[in-house]
Amino acid sequence: MTVYGALDIGGTKIAGALLDGKGRLLARAQRATPADRPAADLAAAVMKVLDDLAAFPAWDELSCMGIASAGPVDTDAGTVSPVNIPGWRGFPLIDLVRTHPRLPLSVLPVLVGDAVAMTAAEHWLGAARGFDNALCMVVSTGVGGGLVLGGRVHAGRTGNAGHIGHITVDHEGPRCACGAPGCVESLASGTAIAAHARALGWTAEPGSPSHAAAVAAAAREGDERALAAFRRSARALAAAIAATAALVELDRVVIGGGVAQAGDVLFSPLRQYLDDYAVLDFTRGFSVVPAGLALNAGLIGAAATASAETVSPAGIPHC
Amino acid sequence: MTVYGALDIGGTKIAGALLDGKGRLLARAQRATPADRPAADLAAAVMKVLDDLAAFPAWDELSCMGIASAGPVDTDAGTVSPVNIPGWRGFPLIDLVRTHPRLPLSVLPVLVGDAVAMTAAEHWLGAARGFDNALCMVVSTGVGGGLVLGGRVHAGRTGNAGHIGHITVDHEGPRCACGAPGCVESLASGTAIAAHARALGWTAEPGSPSHAAAVAAAAREGDERALAAFRRSARALAAAIAATAALVELDRVVIGGGVAQAGDVLFSPLRQYLDDYAVLDFTRGFSVVPAGLALNAGLIGAAATASAETVSPAGIPHC
Repeated sequence: MTVYGALDIGGTKIAGALLDGKGRLLARAQRATPADRPAADLAAAVMKVLDDLAAFPAWDELSCMGIASAGPVDTDAGTVSPVNIPGWRGFPLIDLVRTHPRLPLSVLPVLVGDAVAMTAAEHWLGAARGFDNALCMVVSTGVGGGLVLGGRVHAGRTGNAGHIGHITVDHEGPRCACGAPGCVESLASGTAIAAHARALGWTAEPGSPSHAAAVAAAAREGDERALAAFRRSARALAAAIAATAALVELDRVVIGGGVAQAGDVLFSPLRQYLDDYAVLDFTRGFSVVPAGLALNAGLIGAAATASAETVSPAGIPHC
Repeated sequence: MTVYGALDIGGTKIAGALLDGKGRLLARAQRATPADRPAADLAAAVMKVLDDLAAFPAWDELSCMGIASAGPVDTDAGTVSPVNIPGWRGFPLIDLVRTHPRLPLSVLPVLVGDAVAMTAAEHWLGAARGFDNALCMVVSTGVGGGLVLGGRVHAGRTGNAGHIGHITVDHEGPRCACGAPGCVESLASGTAIAAHARALGWTAEPGSPSHAAAVAAAAREGDERALAAFRRSARALAAAIAATAALVELDRVVIGGGVAQAGDVLFSPLRQYLDDYAVLDFTRGFSVVPAGLALNAGLIGAAATASAETVSPAGIPHC
């Protein structure tokens, strides 16, 4: 049996799993991310997750290991600098994992950004399965994405390709937190949706948080300010998706993340705006659908990246 | 000896060539494009260019054939619908060429859009040589482009990938001729540069045409309106190039076409604006340079596309 190891490093938790060749979880482990602690404490948490995994019998058949991490990552250097884990800047995560005493020497861990991991997971087992040219997006507090081109995940040299949240759709617009003008994320993220709804006068129910899920609930009840906030997000997403289709030709667009949970409140204006932005014949040949995987997409994607079939054409080493 | 055949179909002329394995022209033929005539007359002109090529001794060693055409093209269907050749809409160009009595049955012609052909040429012998991830652009009366990803030309399923002229950088801006809002072409093309300079009050010398080359000459003499028109173009190009770098990761950007002839008048503000739009580490790892090939880039690119080394990963058939 082939057993894939997987780690998923996020700002809240560090998850690990062992999966079989069909992407089924054989074992799972998890620790809270000590996000505000020094690098060594973070490293210790990763090693403990690996300890937990190594205690499962399936570990003995481990044949490869994929690591998904919050970005930015540098897969070429094997380092991570997650925005929401301040203690790690250029941290050599691959080197760390290789020092685990139970990791077989034959297993070379593969690093991938979390959005690219989600893309690999959707392409392997989710809503992009069977599509050779796909854009998979995560629309949540931020906006991320990844690409499948010619049947394989295109991670780019440093593993950050598909970074659709930080392409400009409003080139004279206000600056995004990243510094560039008019990024998709600054217009389309859950954070941007909630901020725009509030700017239009919408307020959450007393005692409830005023995040995008609450705006979506208001939109479903017909609140015009909430609907306008989702339309603004959908318009920016449509311009960016159409741009991606013009640049690489797409067969499929998959959208996951918290904001995608809004369903038709997002997808309906998005499909309308796509008619406006994707006007050339060859940019219209894709369908837009919600993500197929919810739980464990990061772990499944890490495993998929480590498997030979879905590895980047850029030649990331794998088992 | 390997001999590559090449055709380059444009709105003004239909060119043909035979090239050796190093991209050197062994023979060349050319006819004016009867752009306003019916499809059959256009087809006859193509066949005459092939007749002329077949009369050269090198034809006897013909081992493959590439055809670059003004777009849109559909390489999957083998058809072309060049904007500036009204008589051809969905015209089966591949089927036509295959009926030429002197074409060996073993030679399966390969179709490619002209901007993708330029990209293949620059990657083979020009300014993108040795770069695995490149964007090559033509900025002239329109704006076109093509991509090299993972060391190979990425033409997309229908051969139109890299279509950077029709990505939106101003999503609430005026509509482009294509119908979509705020396309790069509507802001950055030579046509747009000249129109913007005129709108600012610039006028050409009496008796001279008021095209982008004249605006460039005025800019070099310090005309503020001319400089502003080039800055506006450069800004839109910078936003689009940065978007492409975020989506696929780039090592090289090559710009050819008439507007690139303006030199520093274009490249200097372009490089400044890139600092503004390409702010994430992984989007900054490329250099922007003028095209390396001027003459015959379409023919060289058609030949390159027909050669195994540079064919699209999408699996375009080749010799």
